[in-house]
Amino acid sequence: MKKLINAPEAVLSESLDGFARAHADLVTLGEERKFVARRQLTPGKVALISGGGSGHEPLHAGFVGYGMLDAACPGQVFTSPTPDQMAAAVEAVEQGAGALFIVKNYEGDVMNFEMAAEIAGREVARVLTDDDVAVEASTWSTGRRGVAGTLVVEKIVGAAAEQGRPLADLVALGEAVNRATRSMGVALTSCTVPAAGKPTFVIGEDEMEMGVGIHGEPGRRRVALARADMIAEEMLEAVLADLPAARGAPCLLLVNGFGGTPLMELYLMVEAASRVLDKHGVKVARHLTGNYVTSLDMAGCSLTVTALTDEMIGLWDAPVHTAALRWGR
Amino acid sequence: MKKLINAPEAVLSESLDGFARAHADLVTLGEERKFVARRQLTPGKVALISGGGSGHEPLHAGFVGYGMLDAACPGQVFTSPTPDQMAAAVEAVEQGAGALFIVKNYEGDVMNFEMAAEIAGREVARVLTDDDVAVEASTWSTGRRGVAGTLVVEKIVGAAAEQGRPLADLVALGEAVNRATRSMGVALTSCTVPAAGKPTFVIGEDEMEMGVGIHGEPGRRRVALARADMIAEEMLEAVLADLPAARGAPCLLLVNGFGGTPLMELYLMVEAASRVLDKHGVKVARHLTGNYVTSLDMAGCSLTVTALTDEMIGLWDAPVHTAALRWGR
Repeated sequence: MKKLINAPEAVLSESLDGFARAHADLVTLGEERKFVARRQLTPGKVALISGGGSGHEPLHAGFVGYGMLDAACPGQVFTSPTPDQMAAAVEAVEQGAGALFIVKNYEGDVMNFEMAAEIAGREVARVLTDDDVAVEASTWSTGRRGVAGTLVVEKIVGAAAEQGRPLADLVALGEAVNRATRSMGVALTSCTVPAAGKPTFVIGEDEMEMGVGIHGEPGRRRVALARADMIAEEMLEAVLADLPAARGAPCLLLVNGFGGTPLMELYLMVEAASRVLDKHGVKVARHLTGNYVTSLDMAGCSLTVTALTDEMIGLWDAPVHTAALRWGR
Repeated sequence: MKKLINAPEAVLSESLDGFARAHADLVTLGEERKFVARRQLTPGKVALISGGGSGHEPLHAGFVGYGMLDAACPGQVFTSPTPDQMAAAVEAVEQGAGALFIVKNYEGDVMNFEMAAEIAGREVARVLTDDDVAVEASTWSTGRRGVAGTLVVEKIVGAAAEQGRPLADLVALGEAVNRATRSMGVALTSCTVPAAGKPTFVIGEDEMEMGVGIHGEPGRRRVALARADMIAEEMLEAVLADLPAARGAPCLLLVNGFGGTPLMELYLMVEAASRVLDKHGVKVARHLTGNYVTSLDMAGCSLTVTALTDEMIGLWDAPVHTAALRWGR
């Protein structure tokens, strides 16, 4: 295992300390590193809280700040955060208007956020993300997995929360964005969990995992390494088959790297994906390209399409100021 | 070679097309893809132009935009752009106040930017960056190499150019920032140039290349893989030995990934580096953490320290709006 670390058991705490140090203007680190919270809270605003296993950086702590999340709870690598983390986050950032949990659809996350809602003692609602069309159930999920589209939900709902909208509105909006968002991924290499010390899965030099999950879970099929154009076509055909609204609506195209793939290849995938979308009559109105929802050091990428309404475009464009996404201020 | 590409010879053109497409609000692509230019030029401003071999994305095209570069000329992977690229960029973006070339110190780049200055037919000056303290000469450089510190020069000089400062001032400022900036890198793996199809260098499972260049050039020594704290200590001791101004000045710490290292490890390196800097009495006033000056898919990172003046802090904080760096607007 070749990583820039001191010891596997210290990776998360040292990384969180570095994150909080580098972004001390934006965030604070909760006691016992239970959560990362916005330094400046907005009184009367619904508190947006997300979280999940670590190893997907910048998701979720990188999206804490103005116009997006109020807190993020980091679990150990690829392990759900515990209910007391989310309860502590609610306690720290809830401002009297209730809290909204944005939860990726994995069994551990679903269960632990549910328990947190019960013990939080405040009004808490939940939006579940399940944008991955690759498989209907997987290693850690019943139903589809929540993957890169989660950041789209966090950005759009975050902007709406900043406008002062009530909890019930935000739930409806978050569910609408999730329904309008579909993703699929491909892995060229495995990732290596620091505590395991060896690759999560074995893959041949000429193979790729089509439909891979963000923890390296199996996808649809193990196939021969293909050209970028073919990869884009297979992934987007699966995405579009499940998202009829994409034809006719202005769309967001998110080309997301898994951590080990450089920007040069991701921009090449933008071009490959755009050609496929053109062919299908899908019009891309907004782009986001980069390593945003990663799987440690895995090479590969996911493609996400969101069929935007005019309201969603306005909220996507609204100012955001976090460690990983920033515009308009 | 496992990459998201169609064919090695099409990587650069397809990646540039995707970049221009994803950032069409910010940039245009010159004829024959000779350069990436700002969509909105500021009349009367000195034109800032950089460039170099591709494979270091987002450097340089990702830094084209308000408050930073006016144009970037992408060579083939790890290969200098040709003089006609820079001459075409000058022709396209020079606004009557002259052009400033920001050039990393590699023989091909130095020679080709020099020839471009001769044929440009406008007033052109140059700032050379050579912030890498690892070695005094290397595979493609006489004197020190220009590495991640180049982005610090581009940001600070870009902000000053936006204020309308004349060419001679910008040259003096750029040289001052370069003198105040030192870097060193470490590689855990090699990178793979698409046209070569195999790793640039061979490195053992338990080894790292201390002082590596951004093209995978040899550094100071090949050593056993060490803990993050030890790596930070060795790199920063070399940096600080060469930058006495760092003690007493507010400093910028840039923890830069080489493309294959995830953010989780980079933030851990922020923590490791900060502990070393604390011990040496160096005060970090600004942080930048991420994959900014990469080496394709190489795993590893570089640490850069700039000893800032108050003027430089103001210029660092000034608004910037590019694909890869954005704040304040």
